[in-house]
Amino acid sequence: MNIVILGSGNVATVLGSALSEAGYNIIQVWSRNVKHAEALASLLHTNFIDDLSLVDSSADLYLIAVSDDAIPVIKTSMQFLKGIVVHTSGSTSIDILKDKFENFGVFYPFQTFSKEREVNFRDVPILLEASNSKTMLVLESIASSISNKAQECNSDQRKALHIAAVFACNFTNHLYTIAQKLLEEYQLDFDLLRPLIAETAQKVQEFMPENVQTGPAVRKDMNTIGSHLKQLEDHPELLAIYKLLTEQIISASSKN
Amino acid sequence: MNIVILGSGNVATVLGSALSEAGYNIIQVWSRNVKHAEALASLLHTNFIDDLSLVDSSADLYLIAVSDDAIPVIKTSMQFLKGIVVHTSGSTSIDILKDKFENFGVFYPFQTFSKEREVNFRDVPILLEASNSKTMLVLESIASSISNKAQECNSDQRKALHIAAVFACNFTNHLYTIAQKLLEEYQLDFDLLRPLIAETAQKVQEFMPENVQTGPAVRKDMNTIGSHLKQLEDHPELLAIYKLLTEQIISASSKN
Repeated sequence: MNIVILGSGNVATVLGSALSEAGYNIIQVWSRNVKHAEALASLLHTNFIDDLSLVDSSADLYLIAVSDDAIPVIKTSMQFLKGIVVHTSGSTSIDILKDKFENFGVFYPFQTFSKEREVNFRDVPILLEASNSKTMLVLESIASSISNKAQECNSDQRKALHIAAVFACNFTNHLYTIAQKLLEEYQLDFDLLRPLIAETAQKVQEFMPENVQTGPAVRKDMNTIGSHLKQLEDHPELLAIYKLLTEQIISASSKN
Repeated sequence: MNIVILGSGNVATVLGSALSEAGYNIIQVWSRNVKHAEALASLLHTNFIDDLSLVDSSADLYLIAVSDDAIPVIKTSMQFLKGIVVHTSGSTSIDILKDKFENFGVFYPFQTFSKEREVNFRDVPILLEASNSKTMLVLESIASSISNKAQECNSDQRKALHIAAVFACNFTNHLYTIAQKLLEEYQLDFDLLRPLIAETAQKVQEFMPENVQTGPAVRKDMNTIGSHLKQLEDHPELLAIYKLLTEQIISASSKN
């Protein structure tokens, strides 16, 4: 099975590496930026191109792992291909590929990737969508060879999952940043918070989050909330988040 | 060293257990609720009382581990004691104890505790404050015997730490709940999110959160943000959080 990787960012890198380690033959890496193409191609021991007209038309799978905005641009510049063409985007419909290709789909690895940290791909859910059942069978076989958590997922579901990830990962990380800045202001080290952050995430590996909510809001401890609001008076941005989330936790717990 | 535990909630339970395992002699457990007092006393193989006038006046340390609101009530009902009296609250000043006792302080274990999960106490930071240096030495010795992370911390710092924990733990857990409900709406299992939540927390064990922020807001990917806002139209509560946090992430990343 011959694969072409289009893109050179975090997703292209981790997916290319996982597929290469699983024994697939990565025959080309394309990137708009020739240096990035060369770097990833070198990592995957393969060839690189920076011109889409040079994409090898004999491959079985083309993985478009680029930013959402770039997908339509790249698609337009690509020739018609017999092989399966997939994108890896959480928030892009499968339909973006349908006017150009016959066998196409989505291959969405659901995890936060960074170049600094290696992730165990076997635990990463891969959400699949395909233009036809034959294509789905191929995608399932590839996904299962690198992950234990491959499953079908339509475009609406994938979009909901992507939004859920913004809340549970991106926004959460911003809350960590806020906490870190607060500690900094009081000459306290972020190390003090790290065990708490780890335990908070660990708890929901076993339990549902609504069943392990803690803190002044869920206890409706208005004294503590009042004292926190007072202390945050000089931080209007934090005050806005504190008020909004506290109100919503109180309201959610009153419904239970 | 003889210790009396006042309270029977999560903090009283985990702290009592850790001290008992470290070889301290828990001589009494008090709780307003006699059944709770009995249950914790049985766990710690000791006696229980539900009347504050029966508190043993010969103990070396009295640990008040009750809700913040209850601290002044309990203090008023207690007799004067020669031993050290500490509370375990993040958001209560040390001064609350000064008109009644001579040797007093704060013994604040900084972690989220639940009865369902055992926490390794050696990794839990314990923040200490004391009325005098002799008392601080005793508290440091006790804290160090159950944790590797005991340190001094004044009341202002402790309050800031408590607010930071609301952001990094309580609010974060509420974001997990929001994400879980979104998935439920689309017939998706929360299991899909668990690896992402774990990795998000794991990343900041090594890195500073502002350096590993990901997602559409930090990329200023206005197309994706617009499409998410549209999809959240029927969820005004989620829309409010999405807008506020997205604006703040964009603004914070523009400052760098």
